[in-house]
Amino acid sequence: MIFEGFKSEVGEWLQGTGPDSDLVISSRVRLARNLANSPFTSVANEDQSRKVADRIGVALDRLGSGLPLQVYPLENRPVVERQVLVERHLVSHELATGEGPRLVGFDETESFSVMGNEEDHLRLQVMKSGNQLDQAWEQMCPLERALEEELQFAFHSKYGYLTACPTNVGTGLRASVMLHLPALVITGQIEQVTSAATKIHLAVRGLFGEGTEAQGDFFQISNQRTLGLTEEQILDNIASVLPRIIEYERKLREELLERRRERIEDRIGRAYGILSHAHVMTSKEALEHLSLVRLGVTMGLLDGVSMTQVNRMFLHSQPGHLQCLQGEPLSSDDRDRKRADLLRGILGDSAG
Amino acid sequence: MIFEGFKSEVGEWLQGTGPDSDLVISSRVRLARNLANSPFTSVANEDQSRKVADRIGVALDRLGSGLPLQVYPLENRPVVERQVLVERHLVSHELATGEGPRLVGFDETESFSVMGNEEDHLRLQVMKSGNQLDQAWEQMCPLERALEEELQFAFHSKYGYLTACPTNVGTGLRASVMLHLPALVITGQIEQVTSAATKIHLAVRGLFGEGTEAQGDFFQISNQRTLGLTEEQILDNIASVLPRIIEYERKLREELLERRRERIEDRIGRAYGILSHAHVMTSKEALEHLSLVRLGVTMGLLDGVSMTQVNRMFLHSQPGHLQCLQGEPLSSDDRDRKRADLLRGILGDSAG
Repeated sequence: MIFEGFKSEVGEWLQGTGPDSDLVISSRVRLARNLANSPFTSVANEDQSRKVADRIGVALDRLGSGLPLQVYPLENRPVVERQVLVERHLVSHELATGEGPRLVGFDETESFSVMGNEEDHLRLQVMKSGNQLDQAWEQMCPLERALEEELQFAFHSKYGYLTACPTNVGTGLRASVMLHLPALVITGQIEQVTSAATKIHLAVRGLFGEGTEAQGDFFQISNQRTLGLTEEQILDNIASVLPRIIEYERKLREELLERRRERIEDRIGRAYGILSHAHVMTSKEALEHLSLVRLGVTMGLLDGVSMTQVNRMFLHSQPGHLQCLQGEPLSSDDRDRKRADLLRGILGDSAG
Repeated sequence: MIFEGFKSEVGEWLQGTGPDSDLVISSRVRLARNLANSPFTSVANEDQSRKVADRIGVALDRLGSGLPLQVYPLENRPVVERQVLVERHLVSHELATGEGPRLVGFDETESFSVMGNEEDHLRLQVMKSGNQLDQAWEQMCPLERALEEELQFAFHSKYGYLTACPTNVGTGLRASVMLHLPALVITGQIEQVTSAATKIHLAVRGLFGEGTEAQGDFFQISNQRTLGLTEEQILDNIASVLPRIIEYERKLREELLERRRERIEDRIGRAYGILSHAHVMTSKEALEHLSLVRLGVTMGLLDGVSMTQVNRMFLHSQPGHLQCLQGEPLSSDDRDRKRADLLRGILGDSAG
């Protein structure tokens, strides 16, 4: 088992700390890199992929004590473990369900992670709690430089870093923030925000990035362009729109409190009541209630609940974590029962 | 104020005690009587009605210490007080909203009650917790006899007691039981029971008798015929069908526990969670959740809740009681808020 007893219960990025953490869950930067003179993952044969994985593994080992990453090959890992890695945002769904030699490396706090043989040979990620995109980028730079000293990256003097998919060519940088925007959703203003973001070439996605829908009022906003811009321009592009979204959401939360206090307290209270007393619950339903409970905690409307509890429920109620905690694979029905048990247990209500 | 601080929080009939109290809420008998040589209420003028009310008042006073009834004239009583009397099943909706001289009398336990100048001059009622129709009838007999000594009732040697509405002529007796049948409702079997009851000339009604629909799985079953049967035959008619309904409901509850335990625990838990954490609630919604919570208590699935709490919520969340507790008239929206406050308060949950 990769995670022995979930040593660090939730990763650093889900601590609910950092600036603007009332609505910015986390900030993330990732770089796509490929080894020079090696075929891209999608066209490499098993032997070539193994060599790439080995070279990356050796390079990560050499980073040594300066950046103590644990590295794990993903082949032959149980499905549930790979699912846990996805839920902790340490690997992509593609890497978890892919084939052939591939690996993941991450540090104890789960702030840094590295994927080997994903769509690109190398994907580097830094995630931090709250609104800390610049800080995440600052931590990324030495990691990338250290690896570049070990590995020669495919680079073109005109196009920049070469990547398997043209949308990543250039900087290979994707910067994103995970936002919790319940007031924008409740008041029906979210469309305005997403269409404004799209107009300035930002993508709006769900909890697990590309190809996932927004759920429970959680939205990931990221750059779409990587070519023809410097890394700083990409970060600035998000930084330019983020304060306005934050301000908008906060203003609407205040208005909800002023004008519809009982209604919003009612929705939050009911969400808490159901989470703490249901005996069967799908993950979709859990996420919807958790969104409202998170809102309640940040608005000071739910005294008895901590952000730590919310974050644990958020992560541990997901299918992989549930099965990992249970120590065995569970059917969908069983998961719905165990999820409800877990949520009741965390909220620790006596009756019901 | 008739009820100073709700001295006895709930009447004897809502104590949740007595035989079969897991599903028989209460048993009730009532007799309709009219004074000889006085016009029926519907055709009496104010002066005639006052005389009837006065004669009844004097007769009730003379019953003296043997049956200490408090008697109150209903004219000029605040709307809210009259509503409270209806909710406590001490007077009918008709008496509460009627006009002219009329009165109510009841004892401290609210087991006995007397209405003056309802549809008939006199309506006598005995209500008891649980399945105690025979005991209620036994307590009714001396009350009726004592009043008959004071007042001469309109009686016809062939038709029996004469009443304003032909459906009450003869014995003037209506016997009813209030049943809580959630398993029959959940499993869709309730129609069978109600149609079987109707076939043997029993009426199936809602919480507040005639003209009210069943709500929250509560059903009142009563005799429709009063003429051509003795009192004992009327009681036997209900007594003959009641054990079968009780057995049917209990069997279905057991089956629910065996075959759909998690689903039923889930419904009950959610009902409890919402009741204990909502901030806005209609009386219809409250009744639905209370029905499930009552089921949970009787099935031993809700350890932290007592039947006393359920009964208090049941009665005190009704509009008249809410306004009485608040000490002022409340709009419908205000009642929905105060109701939720009251329910949270009774269940005493800290968070939310």
